[in-house]
Amino acid sequence: MYVPTFPRQVSSHEISIVFRSHSIIQASKLKITLAETLKPLVPVEDLQFGQTMTDHMMVATYDPINGWSAPEIKPYGPLTLDPASSCFQYCPNVFEGMKAYMGPDGKARLFRPQLNMARMEMSAARVALPLFNSSALLTLIKKLVAIERRWIPTAKGCSLYIRPTIIGTRAALGVAASDHATLYILCSPTGPYFRSPPPSLSLPTQKPNKTVSLLAVSENVRSWPGGTGGFKLGLNYAPGFAVQKVAAEKGYAQVLWLLPEVGEGGKVEMKVTEAGAMNFFVVVKRDDGGMDVITPPLDGTILPGLTRASVLSLCRAHTSSPSSSPSLPSLPPSLNLHIHERPLTMTQLLSYSSSGTLLEAFGVGTAVIVAPIGKIGYQEEGKVGETVIELPVWESEGGLGVVGEALWERIVGIQEGRVEWEGWSVVCE
Amino acid sequence: MYVPTFPRQVSSHEISIVFRSHSIIQASKLKITLAETLKPLVPVEDLQFGQTMTDHMMVATYDPINGWSAPEIKPYGPLTLDPASSCFQYCPNVFEGMKAYMGPDGKARLFRPQLNMARMEMSAARVALPLFNSSALLTLIKKLVAIERRWIPTAKGCSLYIRPTIIGTRAALGVAASDHATLYILCSPTGPYFRSPPPSLSLPTQKPNKTVSLLAVSENVRSWPGGTGGFKLGLNYAPGFAVQKVAAEKGYAQVLWLLPEVGEGGKVEMKVTEAGAMNFFVVVKRDDGGMDVITPPLDGTILPGLTRASVLSLCRAHTSSPSSSPSLPSLPPSLNLHIHERPLTMTQLLSYSSSGTLLEAFGVGTAVIVAPIGKIGYQEEGKVGETVIELPVWESEGGLGVVGEALWERIVGIQEGRVEWEGWSVVCE
Repeated sequence: MYVPTFPRQVSSHEISIVFRSHSIIQASKLKITLAETLKPLVPVEDLQFGQTMTDHMMVATYDPINGWSAPEIKPYGPLTLDPASSCFQYCPNVFEGMKAYMGPDGKARLFRPQLNMARMEMSAARVALPLFNSSALLTLIKKLVAIERRWIPTAKGCSLYIRPTIIGTRAALGVAASDHATLYILCSPTGPYFRSPPPSLSLPTQKPNKTVSLLAVSENVRSWPGGTGGFKLGLNYAPGFAVQKVAAEKGYAQVLWLLPEVGEGGKVEMKVTEAGAMNFFVVVKRDDGGMDVITPPLDGTILPGLTRASVLSLCRAHTSSPSSSPSLPSLPPSLNLHIHERPLTMTQLLSYSSSGTLLEAFGVGTAVIVAPIGKIGYQEEGKVGETVIELPVWESEGGLGVVGEALWERIVGIQEGRVEWEGWSVVCE
Repeated sequence: MYVPTFPRQVSSHEISIVFRSHSIIQASKLKITLAETLKPLVPVEDLQFGQTMTDHMMVATYDPINGWSAPEIKPYGPLTLDPASSCFQYCPNVFEGMKAYMGPDGKARLFRPQLNMARMEMSAARVALPLFNSSALLTLIKKLVAIERRWIPTAKGCSLYIRPTIIGTRAALGVAASDHATLYILCSPTGPYFRSPPPSLSLPTQKPNKTVSLLAVSENVRSWPGGTGGFKLGLNYAPGFAVQKVAAEKGYAQVLWLLPEVGEGGKVEMKVTEAGAMNFFVVVKRDDGGMDVITPPLDGTILPGLTRASVLSLCRAHTSSPSSSPSLPSLPPSLNLHIHERPLTMTQLLSYSSSGTLLEAFGVGTAVIVAPIGKIGYQEEGKVGETVIELPVWESEGGLGVVGEALWERIVGIQEGRVEWEGWSVVCE
C-alpha cells in the first residue's frame, strides 16, 4: 500500500567528504592489552545463549573533533558513560549478530561477514550515528576472533557468537542526533539455539519439545511502513518484551508478528512479518509435485536477514543447478522448489493448513540458523478461543522438515568450512 | 481503523504481589553524599537546553534477588555498566521530563508531578521493566530539588528541568525482558526553549525568528497503532534523528509527523500526530465568533502530554467558567473556545489555511510549554514543489497568537506559583 522509503540515503559523495576528514577507524593503530588471567572455558552443554562472555572485547570511540580513536582490544569490562548519554535517553543503538565457526582444518571462519558490515552501516545511518569504515571493522573482528579462538566450540552447530555494537554517547538532553559514539565488539561462545536443549532444561519424564510454538499477535505491531523494522536497531526489540511475556504465559515460545493492512474493499488482512527475532518461512505442497517456499518480502517492515538471504539463494540454486550438483544434496534433485518473496497473510496460512498443503514452517536467523515451528496460535476476529495451526510432525533429530533440515545441514556445512559455496565462508587468519 | 490496545495491563493484584516482595523503593533509606566542591552557576542567558547539569543526581538499582537498593543522592557522575546490558542492546529505556520553578515566595514547585509518575509507571510496564513505587520516586525528586535549589533560575519562564530515567541493565544477549534496572534522576537548569533565543543565536542583521517552522513528513512515521508512540520511551526518538536532519537541511526547525491512514473509498489521508517532540494544536475561526481548538486524540500513537492535558483543561474551563473568573483572563471572557480531540488531516489543515480560518498553530510540551508555529512545509502527492502553509503573524513578544499567548501566560503563572489552579503546582519542601 505504501512504499516505505529510507529517509535519506547518504550519497557516496558525502561519505567521501566525511571519510576524508576523520571517519576512518584505523585498524593499523590497533592497541592490544591482553587479560592477565584467562577465564575457564564453559562446557558446551552448559552454555546458554549470550550469557558467557570471552576474555576480551574491542572498543573504539568517536567524537566530532578527533574522529575515531585508535581501536583497542582489551579485557572484557564495563563501559563508563555520562547518565545523560543519548544511548540511555533516545536509543540510537545499533548491533549485529555474527558467528565464528571452527572448521575441520582448525581454521576459524566467519559467514558472509561483509553483509553484516553493510547492514551495520545502513542501520547506523538510519539513526544518524557517525559513519565508520566497515572494512576496518571487519579486520578488527577477525583479529578479535583470532585472539579468542580457544573459545570457539568445535561441536557441530556450535560457534562463537559475535556482537558488534555502536551506541550514541552525546551527553546532552536536547533531542538531536548523537555526534559522539562508542563502537565495541563482544564475543560469546554458544551451543545450538533451539536444537537439543541442555539436559537441565528438559524434564526427565517429558520428550523434549524440539519445535518452536508461536502466538500470532496483531494488537501489538513490531514494525510499520516508514518505521525501522528493516534495520538492525536495538530499539526494535524492547517493545516486544511485554508481548513475549503474554505469549509465554499462554504457553508459546515466541511471537509471530502480524501487520494489519487494509486490502481490497476495505477488508483488513493480517500480514505475517517476523517470528520472534527470526525471519519466517513456510513450505507449501504444489499440485505439480514441487514445493512453494514462501517468505514475506523486504518491504521495509522486515529485517533483511543474512540467513534469510542465504536460504533464498540455496533454494533457488537447488532448482536451477544441474542434478549432478544440487545445492541441497539431501533433497531429491528432481524436487522443484518455487521461491516466493511475497506478502503472506493469516488467511492464507489457515487455508494452507486446512487443505493439508502446509508442510513446514521455520524461522531463520544467525542465532538459530533454521528453527522448526510446531504450532501457531491465533485469535481470529469474531471467534471464541484460539485457532491453532498444527504443523506436520517430522521425525528428524531436530524436528525440522525435509526442506528445513536440508537447509540447516547445508548452511552449517558451509559455515563450518566443510562445504565450499560461493565464498560465503571467510577464513579469519 | 484499529483500536490499539496496551498488550497487557498489569493488574492491581499482580502489582500487589510484586510490591509485597521487593519492588518498593524505600525513600526513608535515602543516603546522601554531597559533592565536596560545587560547580559555578551558569548565567541564564548562557543556558542551552539540557547541556548544564547540576551537582548531584539520584540513583537506585534493581536486581531480582534484592529488589531496589537504597536510593542515593550523590555527586553527578558516570554510570558503569556491562557492555552487554539491555539498555545498549535492546533499549528498554524510559524517561520523564519535569520542571521545578522558583515561586515569588522563594519556594520550589513542581507542576502536576503525579501525572509524570503515573506515566512513567505505564512506560516502564510497556517495556517490561521492573515495577517501582512512584510515590517514593516523587519524594526523592522533591528531596533532590531541595538540595539543588540554588540551581533553579528565577527569571520568568526559566526553571530546573528534571529528567527521571530508568534503564534495563540485564547483562546478557538473549532477547528477553530486563530483570535488572537502574533508575536515576538528573537536573539541568534551563531558560526559555524557543522564546527569546540567546543573543549568540540571532544574527545582528536579522530579526530573530520566534516561531517554529515544521516540515510535514509522511514517508517516515513516528508511531503507529499497536506501537509505542503513546508511551514516554527513549526508543521513540532516535528514529526521528535522520528525518530531523533532512528538515534542517530544507530550513525547517522541526518535523510535523504524519501517519497515513486509509479512509473511505480507499483514499489515503495524512493524519497529523506530533510536532517534533511536542503535541500539536491548531486554533480555527468559527462562523459564530468562537474558536475551535483542535488536537489529535490519544489513540495510542500520540504521547499523552501533561502540557497537552493542561491546555485542554484550561480551554474547557475558559468557556465554562463564569465570566468573572475565566481560566484564561487575557482572553475576552465572552470568547467561546470549542475543544476537539479528533483526527486532524493535512487536507483539513490546507483547507483551513486557504479559507483564512486557520488562526494559530502551536506545539506544547514540558520543555517548550507553548511554542508558536509560523509555517508548515508539505510535499503534496502529485504536486511539484512544496506547499507552504503560512500561519498569521502575531505581534506578541514571543510570536504566539492570542490563545497560545493566554495559555503560555496562565500555565507559567501556575507553574511559578503566582496563580493557584486546581492544586497543579506542588511545593517541594
